[in-house]
Amino acid sequence: MGSAEHIAEHVAALRLVDHHVHGAFTADLGRAEFETHLNEGSPEPVPEWMTQFDSQLGFAIRRWCAPVLDLPAHAPADEYWARRAELGVRAVTERLLRAAGVSDWLVDTGFGAGTVLDVDGMAGASQARGHLIVRLESVAEELPADGVAGRDYADEFGARLERAAHGAVGVKSILAYRAGFDIDLSPPAPHAVADAARRWVDGGATRLVDPVLLRHGLHAAVRLGLPIQIHTGFGDRDLDLHRANPIHLLDFLRTPGVADVPIVLLHCYPYHREAGYLAQAFGNVHFDVGLAINHVGVRSTQVVAESFELAPFAKQLYSSDAWGPPELHHLGAVLWRRAVTSVLGDWVTSGDWSAADARRVADMVGRDNARHVYRLG
Amino acid sequence: MGSAEHIAEHVAALRLVDHHVHGAFTADLGRAEFETHLNEGSPEPVPEWMTQFDSQLGFAIRRWCAPVLDLPAHAPADEYWARRAELGVRAVTERLLRAAGVSDWLVDTGFGAGTVLDVDGMAGASQARGHLIVRLESVAEELPADGVAGRDYADEFGARLERAAHGAVGVKSILAYRAGFDIDLSPPAPHAVADAARRWVDGGATRLVDPVLLRHGLHAAVRLGLPIQIHTGFGDRDLDLHRANPIHLLDFLRTPGVADVPIVLLHCYPYHREAGYLAQAFGNVHFDVGLAINHVGVRSTQVVAESFELAPFAKQLYSSDAWGPPELHHLGAVLWRRAVTSVLGDWVTSGDWSAADARRVADMVGRDNARHVYRLG
Amino acid sequence: MGSAEHIAEHVAALRLVDHHVHGAFTADLGRAEFETHLNEGSPEPVPEWMTQFDSQLGFAIRRWCAPVLDLPAHAPADEYWARRAELGVRAVTERLLRAAGVSDWLVDTGFGAGTVLDVDGMAGASQARGHLIVRLESVAEELPADGVAGRDYADEFGARLERAAHGAVGVKSILAYRAGFDIDLSPPAPHAVADAARRWVDGGATRLVDPVLLRHGLHAAVRLGLPIQIHTGFGDRDLDLHRANPIHLLDFLRTPGVADVPIVLLHCYPYHREAGYLAQAFGNVHFDVGLAINHVGVRSTQVVAESFELAPFAKQLYSSDAWGPPELHHLGAVLWRRAVTSVLGDWVTSGDWSAADARRVADMVGRDNARHVYRLG
Repeated sequence: MGSAEHIAEHVAALRLVDHHVHGAFTADLGRAEFETHLNEGSPEPVPEWMTQFDSQLGFAIRRWCAPVLDLPAHAPADEYWARRAELGVRAVTERLLRAAGVSDWLVDTGFGAGTVLDVDGMAGASQARGHLIVRLESVAEELPADGVAGRDYADEFGARLERAAHGAVGVKSILAYRAGFDIDLSPPAPHAVADAARRWVDGGATRLVDPVLLRHGLHAAVRLGLPIQIHTGFGDRDLDLHRANPIHLLDFLRTPGVADVPIVLLHCYPYHREAGYLAQAFGNVHFDVGLAINHVGVRSTQVVAESFELAPFAKQLYSSDAWGPPELHHLGAVLWRRAVTSVLGDWVTSGDWSAADARRVADMVGRDNARHVYRLG
Repeated sequence: MGSAEHIAEHVAALRLVDHHVHGAFTADLGRAEFETHLNEGSPEPVPEWMTQFDSQLGFAIRRWCAPVLDLPAHAPADEYWARRAELGVRAVTERLLRAAGVSDWLVDTGFGAGTVLDVDGMAGASQARGHLIVRLESVAEELPADGVAGRDYADEFGARLERAAHGAVGVKSILAYRAGFDIDLSPPAPHAVADAARRWVDGGATRLVDPVLLRHGLHAAVRLGLPIQIHTGFGDRDLDLHRANPIHLLDFLRTPGVADVPIVLLHCYPYHREAGYLAQAFGNVHFDVGLAINHVGVRSTQVVAESFELAPFAKQLYSSDAWGPPELHHLGAVLWRRAVTSVLGDWVTSGDWSAADARRVADMVGRDNARHVYRLG
Repeated sequence: MGSAEHIAEHVAALRLVDHHVHGAFTADLGRAEFETHLNEGSPEPVPEWMTQFDSQLGFAIRRWCAPVLDLPAHAPADEYWARRAELGVRAVTERLLRAAGVSDWLVDTGFGAGTVLDVDGMAGASQARGHLIVRLESVAEELPADGVAGRDYADEFGARLERAAHGAVGVKSILAYRAGFDIDLSPPAPHAVADAARRWVDGGATRLVDPVLLRHGLHAAVRLGLPIQIHTGFGDRDLDLHRANPIHLLDFLRTPGVADVPIVLLHCYPYHREAGYLAQAFGNVHFDVGLAINHVGVRSTQVVAESFELAPFAKQLYSSDAWGPPELHHLGAVLWRRAVTSVLGDWVTSGDWSAADARRVADMVGRDNARHVYRLG
């Protein structure tokens, strides 16, 4: 058996830490809705003259999820859909989650609560461990509903964040969706926070887009000390993709105090080379190429290869960023394993890397780095 | 015969729709002028101490066009040039166009009329079908010459656009060259259009660079309802490349009404990943990697591979964007076929895609998607 | 022997011109300091819980430099470090520099003088030729120390630049670090230079960041007529990476007079596709992917492949951009040779390029283009 085969075997057996994920759907859904959830970018129904199955993600589902549901690889979309409906949401979810080979899910519960499994639900369905990631903007959005006054906002946010983060292993920011990164990201003055909170509450707003309060939340998280996950790059079209380029976080990363907490840049595509640069340039910056891996399907091999450039290997993590269809939780793991096996295996075959190093780096990125960053013990 | 060979055969036999192209030269030209036309970026003569044949495009011409002119592959540039002169423009053009395997040319006639073949000329020389694409800025630039007053501009532009578009299958905008995308792209108010038109006419301008009139033209096209091609990315150095990044079209794409017409992003390199994102995020957005394919030569395989990431397969099209030398019309098709055969063939070989899917996707991108978008029937 | 093997042999025997490099360390250093110098982006010590050897650069050192120090390929980091210490700085430096196969080093002496070898030191240690590159900002920074008054700044800078450039083959600008490229880069008026110089001297400043004086320096270099190297892209985190994208140099490149001197864009990663575009669009623009080659290790093959897209082959150069550890001087050459051999060899194998062309292009990029640009004779 050659070195490259050894790597395939090793990576296949590696139990992954999926360090940024959401719950799988709790109920069955219709095919149109399912197809909409295969499109990260658009909130609208897939146009009638096409099918979202005709995409890298759709092809990857037919290739890799079909066999988990007892179908042949590349089963047609209609057959896949029929078999899925026949098994029902619970069986489909359990099969796909368990076959992912994930030991720990770090679950951001800040979106779609009620329609997707919570931390315990994910742990139960997958027979693995679940951990909580607290979304900063969700904590903030509780406040106006509870009638918190402007002058009390900062104290109350701090207290609630601390409570919410109790038992959590990290926090998450979706600043990318709410304001973009190309704004002033310095810590706001207390009076500015009070004013902004008053305006927000008076305006009856529920969706937090005020830059002052977003910045306040981010810096409150810095003081909290838990790892901060930041959505960057690719997401739905609500965000301005170019303004979610992680390179615009440079000034934030240079802010005093920020260097003391781990900053984890999520997704990053198509700006993962910029993310790799930041992970080299700042000792506290980590990143992944989650989400993209699923949506580019077979091309994940190239995206993973591009993520192995500037960043030290200790700074890279695995995530699926799955939300909703459990196919996404499963595929993230399958495609990452295939990519890593192929990319690292080629380097071993060409003599550029040793096989022992390749196995060690796979372990680091797939498991050990997340254990270190989030102190999973 | 393996699956990958079947794909090569299938793609070789596929008659393409070149959905964005210009005419081939009508007259012989000198070698210096020819070499200048092998350089998309620069309007100046190639420096004397070098030859533009020493480029990916030049090598691809010597590799793929030389045999069409009865020369061995990789024939030296001097021999290629001598043989080309010997055959003459008509024979060279007919050979190269016909060997491209294109069934339909969608011809933008807005640049260099008189020096290149028109729609009928292209159809005749290639023994294929030709269709008209109307350039918005060319329609606008007729108006001041005809003494149209500011207050009549909007009506007259609308009427002329409708007439010009009669019998056309789409329109095209070169906003990228005239103002870039990082400006306000909302529909201008009528009085602003009248004012801008007056200023333009009074100033005796011929080249339209006024942002108000450019925006007016774009939104007039939206109301017209035909597919709108937009030049994005790579072009000659008149444009600011980064300001022609299609991601700056986000606000335009979110404008009410725009979702009702197909928007086709042309070229896109080196921002084709951003284009793929837009094609996923917006149901009416399509894109190609034309122009770049020719200019990066053998590297077109990688560029085509990068175009198969986020975008659903129904949203991708083939074009050469050739203008002038018929080598460009020919090479676009040759290089796209080689790239698709190699990229999709590898995925079939590795088991990630089925051979049937690969053939189907090649048909979609090379022919069927364009038929659908432009209603070629 | 196949064509690809012939290319490997040819490229292995090619004596390179390293057209942008700095000196190797003159003294032994500790391991922590050494590891810090393997991280281009960060000026801080490598975090204690990781090692910078776990990076593409670290793996490349263990793979390619270990054998030069009589160790097996992939020797563990501790063994490598022990052997390095045993041999001592002089032996290590001589072995690594001489085995690089470089005939000419073009040395930018503007950073770290005293801690690294100068032009003669590099020539001596490597038994090759050395040439001087003068850093514009270093010339400027001598002036306030010598008490030059504001009104005399322009004349004195011009005189000193001319003297400094005597015997030099080019100049270099680090504008990217001092102001970024997305500012007005037109030649400043004389009175503005005098005012800015007065403010700078009065402020007691030593590090030149005034945009007016930086622009003045750049345009003084244009008048001087020597090739101008400009740091672009990837560097340490002092710079704003996105503001060092060479595409922001468009307006500078369009400035009258600039077309008359060779402009050489250095590094460029991850914006090397934009650099390739500029090298196509402007007859006087050249570029390299130095620095990145070392830091991405085995991935240099992909980065080099991406550099062979739009730019004519006469416009590309080889550099290591090594500074400090002689491993960097060595690896630049090793990794470039491997990349070129692999990339061009594959194109010969697939029949896209002829073997003769591949050898010729390797010679151009590795040696001849630099001889032409810098008139090395």
